[in-house]
Amino acid sequence: MKSAQNSEKLLQSIFSIFSEKIPFNRVLGLRLDFTDINHPTLKFDMRDELIGNFIHGNLHGGVISSALDVIGGLTAFIGALNKMEGKSELEKVEKFSRLGTIDLRIDYLRPGKGNSFVASGSVLRTGNKVAVTRMELHNDNNLLIAVGTGTYLVG
Amino acid sequence: MKSAQNSEKLLQSIFSIFSEKIPFNRVLGLRLDFTDINHPTLKFDMRDELIGNFIHGNLHGGVISSALDVIGGLTAFIGALNKMEGKSELEKVEKFSRLGTIDLRIDYLRPGKGNSFVASGSVLRTGNKVAVTRMELHNDNNLLIAVGTGTYLVG
Amino acid sequence: MKSAQNSEKLLQSIFSIFSEKIPFNRVLGLRLDFTDINHPTLKFDMRDELIGNFIHGNLHGGVISSALDVIGGLTAFIGALNKMEGKSELEKVEKFSRLGTIDLRIDYLRPGKGNSFVASGSVLRTGNKVAVTRMELHNDNNLLIAVGTGTYLVG
Amino acid sequence: MKSAQNSEKLLQSIFSIFSEKIPFNRVLGLRLDFTDINHPTLKFDMRDELIGNFIHGNLHGGVISSALDVIGGLTAFIGALNKMEGKSELEKVEKFSRLGTIDLRIDYLRPGKGNSFVASGSVLRTGNKVAVTRMELHNDNNLLIAVGTGTYLVG
Repeated sequence: MKSAQNSEKLLQSIFSIFSEKIPFNRVLGLRLDFTDINHPTLKFDMRDELIGNFIHGNLHGGVISSALDVIGGLTAFIGALNKMEGKSELEKVEKFSRLGTIDLRIDYLRPGKGNSFVASGSVLRTGNKVAVTRMELHNDNNLLIAVGTGTYLVG
Repeated sequence: MKSAQNSEKLLQSIFSIFSEKIPFNRVLGLRLDFTDINHPTLKFDMRDELIGNFIHGNLHGGVISSALDVIGGLTAFIGALNKMEGKSELEKVEKFSRLGTIDLRIDYLRPGKGNSFVASGSVLRTGNKVAVTRMELHNDNNLLIAVGTGTYLVG
Repeated sequence: MKSAQNSEKLLQSIFSIFSEKIPFNRVLGLRLDFTDINHPTLKFDMRDELIGNFIHGNLHGGVISSALDVIGGLTAFIGALNKMEGKSELEKVEKFSRLGTIDLRIDYLRPGKGNSFVASGSVLRTGNKVAVTRMELHNDNNLLIAVGTGTYLVG
Repeated sequence: MKSAQNSEKLLQSIFSIFSEKIPFNRVLGLRLDFTDINHPTLKFDMRDELIGNFIHGNLHGGVISSALDVIGGLTAFIGALNKMEGKSELEKVEKFSRLGTIDLRIDYLRPGKGNSFVASGSVLRTGNKVAVTRMELHNDNNLLIAVGTGTYLVG
């Protein structure tokens, strides 16, 4: 119980770092939602700045890859955290600070149209050094816009 | 000769669309350099907005994937253009408007540190429907920060 | 009804081509199972020939990527077929003959241990020219050994 | 000097393991060539068994991905070895035994036609835990058939 509270507190401080101290996340307008603590999601709204195709008004491909990379990294971190039972908060924060994307594949399935978007992820494997996640981006009509696979350094 | 001039004119109008009408490219501060018409490059400067890791001041991974996706698409388009000898300018512009990323792989090799960055690309294959390109991102010390491979719809 | 029978007959002839006329599929020992006509699976048994790591007796990574590529291609083809209502059998066979892998990502999640393996796939997108699929390889303990994403030319 | 001789001896024993004790490499007919010790290449001949498209007689895509994965792993290992100056032969062999592919991207550029093929690789990054390599497959007319990028666990 106490451990769960600590983890939640830890997540909250990490998530406030995420939202307030990572400038490009603010440019993208990414908002973290961790209603389900094990499956955080990212939400963001369509804004003129994020457009790539000015004729059709679609999201820029780079906005899509950015959001999928970010949610993939967070998902990998949550997966790593779940294997750190009994470790100190300091060790957990250090783990977060060492987190990095090794490689990323993005598949652009449909034009990035919509009023708002949700990026979500799931863990395929969590090792001591490397985690692999799959990510998806849906629009507000629940249409699948893009998917990704990411390999992250978590060790 | 005339054809080369036309192509250059076409590229210039496409490139002005690119710089002025694609909002997210402006957010990223991407500047096109087509000194070598067959190998366009993108340049951009480090700015606070583009930071992902606020402790080390590195580029956000999404900035890197965005820049590599954009230069990959342009490189694919130049490749497709070179196979359109004798086609009208209209057909070439239509080709540009249909250009889209199918999928993308990014490998993050080193932290995105630097004062400015150059993204470049080369064509691996240009088919009637699909083009494949490789991309690289170097910093102003000529250090290789990231590479990518992209598959683009050009048909 | 008649159309469904035709499609099944078509699939059967394609599947016999697959099993009998593609030499490397025989080397791998791939057996097609199309109990569910929309979700074909591939089965194969562990055999000494297929080993990569002689100490642990694991499947060679190339066997895994081969099986995932093959099931991805078949899944892409089934997806394309479902959009060909009313087309002749000849057109469908021609579609099959033009099928080709554009690119492939494989994630090796766990050592390839097991007595037998099942490769399955699902369609992420079916366009007129390009299809994207996700693939999975499980062993006979239902352990997820590897996943993949493939982009296929179907046009 | 002595160190170079030792390394060569080590490589030779590793390479004989490679050729004689990895069954699927024998199925593929892979022959290691380490004339240039830092850039090993793999050669193999077209054989009926390796065919995927029986009409055109092309290499099976799985043969291509297999060969590129193998040369990528060897290239990653050579890169890791070069950072192990002064370590014992035992430590180096242990490093080899822990080598594993994390993920792989293959781009199929041209039909796999030819009498024989050469797979080669180059290191993009060698870290303590993870190495990234690029790979290429050419036929005996020096035509580029396929390229790949691989991420390998070397730690």
